[in-house]
Amino acid sequence: MGAEREAARLRPSYLIRVMPAKGVLVAVTADAIVAGGGVIGTAIAWRAAMAGLGVILVDPEQGDAASLVAAGMLAPVSEALFGEGALLRVNLLAVARFGSFAAELEEVTGHPVGLRREGTLAIAYDAGDYAALMRLTAFRRSAGLDAEELDSRACRKLESFLTPDVHGGVLFAGDWSVDNRRYAAALREAAADAKVLLVRDRVTEVLIRDGQARGVRLADGGEIGSARVVVAAGSASGAVAGLPAQLRAAVRPVKGQLLRLRHPAGLPPVLTHTIRATVRGIDVYLVPRADGEVIVGATQEERGPDRTVTAGAVHDLLHDAMSVLPVTSELILAETCAGLRPGTPDNGPIVGGFSVGGLLLATGHYRNGILMSPVTADAVVACLTGQPPAPEWAPFTPGRFVVEGLAGEKGSR
Amino acid sequence: MGAEREAARLRPSYLIRVMPAKGVLVAVTADAIVAGGGVIGTAIAWRAAMAGLGVILVDPEQGDAASLVAAGMLAPVSEALFGEGALLRVNLLAVARFGSFAAELEEVTGHPVGLRREGTLAIAYDAGDYAALMRLTAFRRSAGLDAEELDSRACRKLESFLTPDVHGGVLFAGDWSVDNRRYAAALREAAADAKVLLVRDRVTEVLIRDGQARGVRLADGGEIGSARVVVAAGSASGAVAGLPAQLRAAVRPVKGQLLRLRHPAGLPPVLTHTIRATVRGIDVYLVPRADGEVIVGATQEERGPDRTVTAGAVHDLLHDAMSVLPVTSELILAETCAGLRPGTPDNGPIVGGFSVGGLLLATGHYRNGILMSPVTADAVVACLTGQPPAPEWAPFTPGRFVVEGLAGEKGSR
Repeated sequence: MGAEREAARLRPSYLIRVMPAKGVLVAVTADAIVAGGGVIGTAIAWRAAMAGLGVILVDPEQGDAASLVAAGMLAPVSEALFGEGALLRVNLLAVARFGSFAAELEEVTGHPVGLRREGTLAIAYDAGDYAALMRLTAFRRSAGLDAEELDSRACRKLESFLTPDVHGGVLFAGDWSVDNRRYAAALREAAADAKVLLVRDRVTEVLIRDGQARGVRLADGGEIGSARVVVAAGSASGAVAGLPAQLRAAVRPVKGQLLRLRHPAGLPPVLTHTIRATVRGIDVYLVPRADGEVIVGATQEERGPDRTVTAGAVHDLLHDAMSVLPVTSELILAETCAGLRPGTPDNGPIVGGFSVGGLLLATGHYRNGILMSPVTADAVVACLTGQPPAPEWAPFTPGRFVVEGLAGEKGSR
Repeated sequence: MGAEREAARLRPSYLIRVMPAKGVLVAVTADAIVAGGGVIGTAIAWRAAMAGLGVILVDPEQGDAASLVAAGMLAPVSEALFGEGALLRVNLLAVARFGSFAAELEEVTGHPVGLRREGTLAIAYDAGDYAALMRLTAFRRSAGLDAEELDSRACRKLESFLTPDVHGGVLFAGDWSVDNRRYAAALREAAADAKVLLVRDRVTEVLIRDGQARGVRLADGGEIGSARVVVAAGSASGAVAGLPAQLRAAVRPVKGQLLRLRHPAGLPPVLTHTIRATVRGIDVYLVPRADGEVIVGATQEERGPDRTVTAGAVHDLLHDAMSVLPVTSELILAETCAGLRPGTPDNGPIVGGFSVGGLLLATGHYRNGILMSPVTADAVVACLTGQPPAPEWAPFTPGRFVVEGLAGEKGSR
């Protein structure tokens, strides 16, 4: 049993006990269990361990985390849409926190996570795209956000490889980006250093008795006991039994396909800023990395749990990228990949507890999982340690999807 | 030393001798050495071993053979161009031989190589494309080849997923295709079964003394002795020292990028015939495999030995394929790859001997390596055993590139 092997490594200073049981089963308990080892779950596990809890992180480690497919844009500004003011406030909290969180992560692990602070250059291809960009810019300014309008020539002064056909653009200097894979790897390392125990398995059910979380059941049949369980399983959160049916139904996978390009030898860097372009109403982004990688993304597809890379999506991404940055055609196509974002009915995350004692959720981050991972960890650790989370989270509790009286599911014990 | 390890496996019934030498070097000799383990070299090694020769095949096995990137079209007809009558005659010889060769290969190994005999449907997208196709069709008919003109509706009756925008087409029933990777794997297995010794190394030089081949030098510094050496190193043949400079200069790499697509679950086969389409003057082909794979190719790029997959090539291949077969967008993009075809100044292969005794070439097959591999093996084995090769090969000897008196290179011994 994976848990047993892992438990054998623990040190007595942590509140995890191996208890002999009948037959081959060994009961393991921890102060807290986190189900899901993407950036959300791993960040929570790390911070909870730093707060003094003995934490077991359960993840099958199949490399299918949506965070490995992300572009790593930290874009509270250019992601903010009309009618999503509450989400914008969480995103602003998130970007304000990201710098210190990343700095601590880099200090603890010694590995840079590839933060870039050049900002996002939003590009409008034609006059219609520009009119839409201007409406969005006015809204963002009304929310107190910084935005600088640029004509076509000024855009190309910032990014010389842009097509001259660009109508105009806006520089959002408040946006950053991070290398999502370096960031995820650093989080895993920091969590391991903080003595988080990793169990390579999948949580199939949260065990609940008398309205209180008691632990989790694993796909291999074992159980881990804990009075605190955090479900951070991304788009797979809905597959976890024991959660109220309404909560399970609230999370759905939204497929995203993206491309990882590289510079061939001899070609100077083709980009400095993150580019978000609207080309005749179609959105595409290009995110440069310090190591010469350029991420092009991303589709948003309602296709259930399908993670295949399709010819049509790759074509469209390349076509749109080449239409704003023609030199893209000269880049090496190093990787095509697809991930499943956890979407929700109101596009907002689901963070915090509800009527089941000790059971917390941290999922539904949709397109903002990387950005929100530090503040989500802060909020969940606050809940775990009896503190109030930041007030920005109030609109995003699980309770908004749970009608009282239906919170429990039959079959959970 | 790789050769030593391989030689230890040999059986006494084969004409290969291990001879102790000074220091760590062990001299190995064979009846014949084949430099290069693509489909050409492996077919030659197999047939030479079947003819009773002790054969050492030298190949670094880095998976970079152009034959692994090919689409496997066996298309003497639709590949025939104006002014290439001699090449057409070799191609016709090749396709006539392919069936019995493949049947023997399948019988020996027990593995099907994925021969398909549905023919090629040549598609013209617009009226200009159609006029060009008609000129080519007239030429091919004048060469005695079978061709059936089809209007747009008849094309879609054969292939229902074709775009209705197709202007018209021609069915070339004489074209076949083979699964190039299954074919290459079967050749390797047949060669091994025939006791061909594989040395995992690279031939850097053909050793020549007194106008006669004496063996080869390997990249690891070892040597193998033989009075018969066949250089079948594809686009890398020009890197083999000892060959006349004019011959080395006659072979250049022509980069080809192609895509391997797969059907998603639930989608019926989208193609039955090989499609060769001309879309506003741009050529693209789609080759279906029995196992649901569809190959889309291929670029032809003069970029030296560069084997990177570029964003622009993938975009263009997908765009052209989708413009004739829109359902392509629904297929899974399983693999993108690039290979280096061995091109020559006259687009013809280089097969046979010249003024250096025992030194044969089998390279320069450009886009027809899979198709020509059986007849190339026949021709080379004829030369190795003192028989005359088929008369169709007369225009394609190495001698056409070698001015007498300059056949040797300084520095060879």
